[in-house]
Amino acid sequence: MSSIFTKIVNREIPAYIIAEDDKYLAFLDINPLAKGHTLVIPKKEVDYIFDLDDETLTGLWLFAKRVAKAIDQYTKDVAIRTGVAVVGLDVPHAHIHLVPISNVADMNFAKPKLKLDPKEFESIAEGIRSFLKK
Amino acid sequence: MSSIFTKIVNREIPAYIIAEDDKYLAFLDINPLAKGHTLVIPKKEVDYIFDLDDETLTGLWLFAKRVAKAIDQYTKDVAIRTGVAVVGLDVPHAHIHLVPISNVADMNFAKPKLKLDPKEFESIAEGIRSFLKK
Repeated sequence: MSSIFTKIVNREIPAYIIAEDDKYLAFLDINPLAKGHTLVIPKKEVDYIFDLDDETLTGLWLFAKRVAKAIDQYTKDVAIRTGVAVVGLDVPHAHIHLVPISNVADMNFAKPKLKLDPKEFESIAEGIRSFLKK
Repeated sequence: MSSIFTKIVNREIPAYIIAEDDKYLAFLDINPLAKGHTLVIPKKEVDYIFDLDDETLTGLWLFAKRVAKAIDQYTKDVAIRTGVAVVGLDVPHAHIHLVPISNVADMNFAKPKLKLDPKEFESIAEGIRSFLKK
């Protein structure tokens, strides 16, 4: 069965898309730790990030860098930088969390997630996309 | 002033080294979340990981992959995989945390750190190094 992220890649379920190319996709985490919390995935469905082949792994991080720079600009008044986490025990499809942070506690995945309505998600996605370098 | 990690690179302060090449260094976190918790750094002193040039960034992740695979083997009886975090609000020198995890709570940096004695650190470092592919 396809992972939930492959279903997003295939547009079988909706997501707030930030960036996409032929190999990678970035979209907002629907249970965010902070406004701008984004997931970056390879389209190739591999469970564990360190099982990705070298080319896919390095391309993934270059794609994530580009997205993180846009998040940095979008959140520059409320966060110091974009933190990174890869946990991956929930969805068996490698994904990088990019989380705007100002202190280490902002990266605690056990804390309550934000509840945002669709308009807020769409506004955040548009905001981040506006800072993406073409 | 050099970062504490540059001092480790220059052997001005000691560390339990896991792996090293001309551009990267991996060593045990002295305040570990779990046995095997390792830091991976570029020798180049850059504060924010996404400010690394593309070549250094991709090389860093390939180096981290090699170290993570060794940690996976060393911790295979006690952890499911190696989680990743980059926070970087403490030491202004980009560093990847590689943390053996079995659930998301294992990645909570607010939880109390393990206290290990030098013999335990040396034993862990030797154990991980024994699984590093040459």
